[in-house]
Amino acid sequence: MSPGPERYGYFGPAGTFTHQALLSIPGTEQGEPTPYATVAACLDAVRSGEITAGLVPIENSVEGGVSATLDNLTYGEPLMITREVLLPVQFTLFARPGTKLSDVRKVITHPHAAAQCRDWLAANVGRATITTEGSTAAAAAAVADPTSGYDAAVSSDVAGRLYGLEPLATEIADNEAAVTRFILLTKQGPVGPATGADKTTMVLFLRADRSGALLELLDQFASRGVNLCRIESRPTKTVFGNYCFAVDAEGHIDDDRMAEAMMGLHRVSASVIFLGSYPRADAAQQHVLPGTSNADHRAAREWLESLRHRRQD
Amino acid sequence: MSPGPERYGYFGPAGTFTHQALLSIPGTEQGEPTPYATVAACLDAVRSGEITAGLVPIENSVEGGVSATLDNLTYGEPLMITREVLLPVQFTLFARPGTKLSDVRKVITHPHAAAQCRDWLAANVGRATITTEGSTAAAAAAVADPTSGYDAAVSSDVAGRLYGLEPLATEIADNEAAVTRFILLTKQGPVGPATGADKTTMVLFLRADRSGALLELLDQFASRGVNLCRIESRPTKTVFGNYCFAVDAEGHIDDDRMAEAMMGLHRVSASVIFLGSYPRADAAQQHVLPGTSNADHRAAREWLESLRHRRQD
Amino acid sequence: MSPGPERYGYFGPAGTFTHQALLSIPGTEQGEPTPYATVAACLDAVRSGEITAGLVPIENSVEGGVSATLDNLTYGEPLMITREVLLPVQFTLFARPGTKLSDVRKVITHPHAAAQCRDWLAANVGRATITTEGSTAAAAAAVADPTSGYDAAVSSDVAGRLYGLEPLATEIADNEAAVTRFILLTKQGPVGPATGADKTTMVLFLRADRSGALLELLDQFASRGVNLCRIESRPTKTVFGNYCFAVDAEGHIDDDRMAEAMMGLHRVSASVIFLGSYPRADAAQQHVLPGTSNADHRAAREWLESLRHRRQD
Amino acid sequence: MSPGPERYGYFGPAGTFTHQALLSIPGTEQGEPTPYATVAACLDAVRSGEITAGLVPIENSVEGGVSATLDNLTYGEPLMITREVLLPVQFTLFARPGTKLSDVRKVITHPHAAAQCRDWLAANVGRATITTEGSTAAAAAAVADPTSGYDAAVSSDVAGRLYGLEPLATEIADNEAAVTRFILLTKQGPVGPATGADKTTMVLFLRADRSGALLELLDQFASRGVNLCRIESRPTKTVFGNYCFAVDAEGHIDDDRMAEAMMGLHRVSASVIFLGSYPRADAAQQHVLPGTSNADHRAAREWLESLRHRRQD
Repeated sequence: MSPGPERYGYFGPAGTFTHQALLSIPGTEQGEPTPYATVAACLDAVRSGEITAGLVPIENSVEGGVSATLDNLTYGEPLMITREVLLPVQFTLFARPGTKLSDVRKVITHPHAAAQCRDWLAANVGRATITTEGSTAAAAAAVADPTSGYDAAVSSDVAGRLYGLEPLATEIADNEAAVTRFILLTKQGPVGPATGADKTTMVLFLRADRSGALLELLDQFASRGVNLCRIESRPTKTVFGNYCFAVDAEGHIDDDRMAEAMMGLHRVSASVIFLGSYPRADAAQQHVLPGTSNADHRAAREWLESLRHRRQD
Repeated sequence: MSPGPERYGYFGPAGTFTHQALLSIPGTEQGEPTPYATVAACLDAVRSGEITAGLVPIENSVEGGVSATLDNLTYGEPLMITREVLLPVQFTLFARPGTKLSDVRKVITHPHAAAQCRDWLAANVGRATITTEGSTAAAAAAVADPTSGYDAAVSSDVAGRLYGLEPLATEIADNEAAVTRFILLTKQGPVGPATGADKTTMVLFLRADRSGALLELLDQFASRGVNLCRIESRPTKTVFGNYCFAVDAEGHIDDDRMAEAMMGLHRVSASVIFLGSYPRADAAQQHVLPGTSNADHRAAREWLESLRHRRQD
Repeated sequence: MSPGPERYGYFGPAGTFTHQALLSIPGTEQGEPTPYATVAACLDAVRSGEITAGLVPIENSVEGGVSATLDNLTYGEPLMITREVLLPVQFTLFARPGTKLSDVRKVITHPHAAAQCRDWLAANVGRATITTEGSTAAAAAAVADPTSGYDAAVSSDVAGRLYGLEPLATEIADNEAAVTRFILLTKQGPVGPATGADKTTMVLFLRADRSGALLELLDQFASRGVNLCRIESRPTKTVFGNYCFAVDAEGHIDDDRMAEAMMGLHRVSASVIFLGSYPRADAAQQHVLPGTSNADHRAAREWLESLRHRRQD
Repeated sequence: MSPGPERYGYFGPAGTFTHQALLSIPGTEQGEPTPYATVAACLDAVRSGEITAGLVPIENSVEGGVSATLDNLTYGEPLMITREVLLPVQFTLFARPGTKLSDVRKVITHPHAAAQCRDWLAANVGRATITTEGSTAAAAAAVADPTSGYDAAVSSDVAGRLYGLEPLATEIADNEAAVTRFILLTKQGPVGPATGADKTTMVLFLRADRSGALLELLDQFASRGVNLCRIESRPTKTVFGNYCFAVDAEGHIDDDRMAEAMMGLHRVSASVIFLGSYPRADAAQQHVLPGTSNADHRAAREWLESLRHRRQD
């Protein structure tokens, strides 16, 4: 990493869940993290060196993958994931002081927040129109402006208070177990050391759209005993019906089984984009199948070398 | 199907691509298709019997899967896909008569349209703010209202003209090959006959979050010679890190290899939601591997029965 | 089966292990089992109806498969296995009364017996020449004839005593755990009922000598959760380098998972010879993987049928 | 190899097919190859250094694998295969001068020869008793002795002439396409270079007798694109129902795909005995699947190393 102080950025504005997630990373509370209006702007700031690391959402337990992030990492100049953060998602309905719940006719929020509070909104402000914006913080800012025409915002707790709003209802998400996963991105560089509870993220492009091609890719992991945490298909944007696959796999590039799986993927795929090996946020120890540890791999390598370089008895 | 005339609905308003796609289905031009403001409203109208069939988008070659559709079909009362429609996607930038491109400061459109014209908008109206709305037709309607504050809308050709707007620029999508795929849904009922160029859609829930569980599901297809067209993972919304998989597979439920794969999936999955077998829009003849035709299956069944019910020579 | 009494035959002569194994089958001690000089003669007697069932060896824990049996069942008119018998193998060195161990110069026995006592013979009668014969009983008979030139026979206990010989040394097999497996063959007819601890035997011919063809066959079992007890390759005798595979699989043709695997094999193989489903001699309960029981199969079939024959809601 | 002249041995006596096969190896006609009475004696002479290389049969297109050879290599001090030889098998019925076919009452030959001429013997000397001996050459020698009591021998052409016998009938093998495969064994030492048309032979012991264990072993080959030429199961001689597997695979230990498969086998097997990489006798060019060449492996390794040792941009 660079010798100077870390400069952090995030998908903003201030007051979003991403901001809140960034502040949970030790060390970031001291600097002055920079908000960016879009995921692309944040990641471009990492690429240009304006910031050393940027935090963006990658996945939400209700809405699924964040396409803007995934596509930017797939098709933009490659970056590297160095950390993941998990954050429970909760929303509050905020309004200007004096507004009552029964007064609410126009609500503004982010599309994901709208989706995650859909049932609550239908049940409690069913006649209100819901407008979606680029962020929940921007929504709170809009409501703070009486001329905006909006009566209420669905936002994080911190955003509503930031703009001097008052809560009409708290914890309004339909699903109380909702979690968002964020990833911290830097320029490509040395991968951090294996911790024994790691994930490796990559994007895989099939060589041909043929029967069993996806199965063949997955078998590169399975035949080496590497478990998958997540797989998400994305259109390749060129030919309709072609997909690439973003994969989170258990383990670290320094684990031999992962290295062998990755080399296998490199050989049978059209392309593999390596997006980093990093500690799991849940610190769950990974399950190592018999015969797949680094020690097993080393023993097998030494055995093979002894056969290849054997001298006459 | 019901004896009376078909009543069609679609994810509207009038003038959307979905409307345009619906009109490409023979017979629909005569009736009075009903627009619905949301995918959920359209599908609920099918469920209630208000309409006999509803058309909604399921997938876009740039943005990927349409989560609202997929989640509604997965978690709502099950419906059945009877047809798919593919439509090339093109956008026009519309404004009220007299507006010039250099005047555009506020643009409104649907989030997918914004995403698909991102580069063009950045290059040509880079200083404009982009607001996203529920549909491109609604965006065109908004621009038609001079008090809305919006200068221009990105929409389909038909929507802009519907609201009396004038094109500032046509074919502004960044990707000229963009295609959207729509599905026509009815209540569950008899599946249409196999045509030899069919797709079957289903949603699969893994039995346990264990190593190789996804591979085991995919192998149910592969071991019977059934090719997959598409797989999309979606969070199950209960436990973070659990996914279900929406799958389009080549073939029809009346093809023995598909039937055997589906029965295998039923046995090893926590749950399988069958969403229908229907003709492929591209009419591509499917590739039948040796030993997997209906005739091969019938011969194998007859052989087995002859062994099981053999009498003494 | 035939209405009259069972007539049993075996690979003889009287006094062989096969004879001993036959007598362990309840009911056979009352009749007058017929010995046959060769496996082929015994099996042809079954085919002609001369006997209703014949017992022959199929496998030995030291020497491996008995090719004469396997090839006869593969290339002869097909028969059916209805039972298996396991018998521990032990040998005695017999001589005419008065002979001492140090006098032994010429030993006669069956090739398998010679192989199984190889080390003992080398250590104890190392200078004797070993001649191999068609059976250990014939060897004992030869030694009983003083003009034969043979001093001692390696045979079963019963054979030596049958010919009035005296034991010079008992339990001389090098491997004390040796077991021979015998199979009882009848004409093809109705398969006996499943017992929950069964085996199914078949011979599989690959469709083409191509990469992965064997793996594809084995996967027909594995993908249905059927475990293999044994696989033995045999040359097909036509083209050098072509093999067929004799397989013992856990389960019964009336088990749905076995039936599905067999139908899969029938579809992808050049040929499948079914040699019967019968109770395991060791009565080991078989392990049924989740999702592979007959109840699971029936539920899956009913589900599929409900989808195929669904009526409009 | 040793600096002095090669000293060859073979499974004799002189005049056997093995002798004939050895003489087909360039260079061996000049020395004085030593015959050994048993496969074990020949291989032990290699182990002791008495000879530098010994030729023994390993497989016959009619009778299958030669257990004595396979078991000796599996359980004896390991040796190394450096060459294979294929020889068409043909037999002649020899007798002392003056004997007519109709006079033949007692025939002597090797068990494999008896098996391979079974039908011819039954049809032409059906009433004769057939005695089997350790070799066809010994059988010819016995017939040459008028006091032996044997009228005719089934042997190779060279053996009958060696003992002054006259042919009663030539080319009497039932299967005209019969071929025997021989292997030349030396002490373990450096493996010869890859030729592009090689075989690698090994013996594999499963780690546990569990469902799918064999499939898992075979998948170590398949997942790396290594084709199998032959697999033969052999009892492990300890527990009944446990088998080890002798495997001939296409390719050379210096091929990266073979090396990776072997390391995988080493990790998941109880034991792997490497018996050598050597040129195929039929010189058939092996089929290399896309992504499995040495160049593909090298590129994948270099890619992985570049990721592991990447420096900050």
